[in-house]
Amino acid sequence: MTATLDAETYARAALTYLAEPGDVRLGAVIRACGAVRTLEAIKAGGFPGAGRGFSGTARSAAVAASRAMRRWQVRLAQLPEPREVAGLCRAGIRLVCPGDPEWPGQLADLGDAQPYALWLRGNADLRFNCLRSVAIVGSRAATAYGAYVASEFAASVAARGWAVVSGGAYGVDAAAHRGALGADGVTVAVLACGVDVPYPAGHKDLLDAIAAQGVIVSEWPPGWNATRLRFLVRNRVIAALATGTLVVEAGQRSGALNSARHARDLNRRLMAVPGPVTSDLSAGCHHIIREWQGMLVTSAAEVIEHLSPVGAARPEPPPGRPEPPPGRPEPPPGQDGQAGQAGRAAAGASGRAAAVLDRDQLTPEAAAVLDALPARGGMGTAKVAVRAGLDPATVLRCLGMLAATGFVERCDEGWRLRRTLRRATAR
Amino acid sequence: MTATLDAETYARAALTYLAEPGDVRLGAVIRACGAVRTLEAIKAGGFPGAGRGFSGTARSAAVAASRAMRRWQVRLAQLPEPREVAGLCRAGIRLVCPGDPEWPGQLADLGDAQPYALWLRGNADLRFNCLRSVAIVGSRAATAYGAYVASEFAASVAARGWAVVSGGAYGVDAAAHRGALGADGVTVAVLACGVDVPYPAGHKDLLDAIAAQGVIVSEWPPGWNATRLRFLVRNRVIAALATGTLVVEAGQRSGALNSARHARDLNRRLMAVPGPVTSDLSAGCHHIIREWQGMLVTSAAEVIEHLSPVGAARPEPPPGRPEPPPGRPEPPPGQDGQAGQAGRAAAGASGRAAAVLDRDQLTPEAAAVLDALPARGGMGTAKVAVRAGLDPATVLRCLGMLAATGFVERCDEGWRLRRTLRRATAR
Repeated sequence: MTATLDAETYARAALTYLAEPGDVRLGAVIRACGAVRTLEAIKAGGFPGAGRGFSGTARSAAVAASRAMRRWQVRLAQLPEPREVAGLCRAGIRLVCPGDPEWPGQLADLGDAQPYALWLRGNADLRFNCLRSVAIVGSRAATAYGAYVASEFAASVAARGWAVVSGGAYGVDAAAHRGALGADGVTVAVLACGVDVPYPAGHKDLLDAIAAQGVIVSEWPPGWNATRLRFLVRNRVIAALATGTLVVEAGQRSGALNSARHARDLNRRLMAVPGPVTSDLSAGCHHIIREWQGMLVTSAAEVIEHLSPVGAARPEPPPGRPEPPPGRPEPPPGQDGQAGQAGRAAAGASGRAAAVLDRDQLTPEAAAVLDALPARGGMGTAKVAVRAGLDPATVLRCLGMLAATGFVERCDEGWRLRRTLRRATAR
Repeated sequence: MTATLDAETYARAALTYLAEPGDVRLGAVIRACGAVRTLEAIKAGGFPGAGRGFSGTARSAAVAASRAMRRWQVRLAQLPEPREVAGLCRAGIRLVCPGDPEWPGQLADLGDAQPYALWLRGNADLRFNCLRSVAIVGSRAATAYGAYVASEFAASVAARGWAVVSGGAYGVDAAAHRGALGADGVTVAVLACGVDVPYPAGHKDLLDAIAAQGVIVSEWPPGWNATRLRFLVRNRVIAALATGTLVVEAGQRSGALNSARHARDLNRRLMAVPGPVTSDLSAGCHHIIREWQGMLVTSAAEVIEHLSPVGAARPEPPPGRPEPPPGRPEPPPGQDGQAGQAGRAAAGASGRAAAVLDRDQLTPEAAAVLDALPARGGMGTAKVAVRAGLDPATVLRCLGMLAATGFVERCDEGWRLRRTLRRATAR
């Protein structure tokens, strides 16, 4: 969370301005030396004494990074002040960094290519919703068949509580986002431009609707434009965020095959929808099934079946933890790299996703924050703090945890209970 | 071959009148006691002393068969005389039995359910052509898409020397036969009625065209009609004859799935063509790919690739046999249960199928028969015998072997050189 900007958060925000995402040399040095020291080194033109003071891995990463310094220094003039970044974060945009409650732990599977930070716009909690999510991708020039299938599958999986992740483009992407929105579900658009940039221009309203009901994600700072290369770099984040990737229609050279390749390389479940062998736009899907052992799927139910862990209905309770209430399965394996209570699973295989914790598993402070929220409508952080009798920083930390575990979500007024809980509270 | 009807051939012909095909109790007793003694026992109302005189397996098979005797005896009144069967065999129809040169050895994979005998009508040699063959099956109510795909795939595989096996029905079957005929290829129709019965009536011309350029096969005697059950019994022969089975379009309860199940159970390669998930007639194909691990294929080239043995282009010479000339691969494994020279492979993976032997591997008698045939047009058996200086029975035996190894084929005048050899001879 970024209401008050700490040094680490500012450094990671700054790095999204200085370097293109997915630069594994920068990823390695951040991992070894931390974002703050990495930013200092770029500003200073290198690590003092080429990494003296570090040892082992950190030192060799620093040496390697020193050689690439020039690449990152060319953008130093564009670097915003901390107050500018804080200003963005008041304008409906937020920055999440590794370790934040909303950071999706599964991005760690990208190794040193994991995002330095993510810019978000929208009410849905990224981490919580991606726990059970399907990336639905495909051709921009989708046929009527492809658009129909994308929309139908997205609506069906969204209605069963699965978030739909896609790229916000024309064709299959747009049909998938619209299908999820139409089913009153959550959808995540991962863009190759700033989260506030209406690109493509024809999707301004769609992107606003996604922000209202889901969340828009980008590795690039607000205001930045998409480039051809950025689409390809972005695709790894779509594949990494989602539990599995479904290709609806794709030509033999479609960018969707690039997403599919990332999903396969990340050991995510890969699925494809078949189509007529006479259609060039199904050739990529058939290639995925034939050559990559992707699963052929013909319905949303098959998608969910393929993504749900075997025996999801009756999980074994993990040792040393209280047995979860019936119908609350564990998260899909490898889907949650984050430790602690927030790592609990999403709801059962059908119905809207519920919170991953019982209320009585909450800390006393989090329970107080939850009780402070109104049964209907939203409330600002300051007012919640007054009602809960806690300081604003603690309230904000608790709200982040409550969002990541599915109790609350953002809204225009600030925060509100998630729908399933509102219903439970109303009872 | 049946110009002069021996006792074994007559007995097997008679059994096709007395029992429905695929009766494993009858198959077991034929295997144990021979067709002649089995026919005698049915006529006599049982084995003398319930199988005394046999021992072990033969005895228990005879005992089991004795209990089923009544079932087979009810049709004794319909039994034709040997001269009637011989008469049928002069009317463009022939009977082939296990051990005959034209008998497809792979039918042994059916075990005791293998046909008692096969009635054939048409010029192509069944055994030789089935060495490299694809069963193309699917719904009678095929869509335009299914009919198009069946016809295109059949034409392409036929043009590359693969025979197309199907069931002569409306829809996918008819499209497959027509595709093969249009490409000047060989096609095999396996019927659930007599080989001379124009069923369905609308396919009279198609069936005649198949007989002229391919071969029609049935387990039921000439003149017999199809029944619902017979279609299902027939399907196992389609699956067993062909190297692999391709399902083009099939609903979830289509008879084509029955053929596919036989192919799977017989360890034949099983393939399916995908289609729109919105089409009920592709649901069976998707089921085959998803649940039965059938191979998804999108082109005739993929079908052939899937059916050709790995490394077909450069086979290892089998021990103790001369190294085959380059470009002549071994037959697909398990495709040829027959021993001896006739077991050699068909031609390379592309181009029209050539003979499976070199001319200099022929016996002196067979070589004399081959030389006696004219370079163009056909010739009757008697005239060949005169030109070759051999007795008619020997000539007929040689012609059968030459047909089974791809040197000669039947024609209206009698026998002729196969096209590839005519070309070679003309050079």
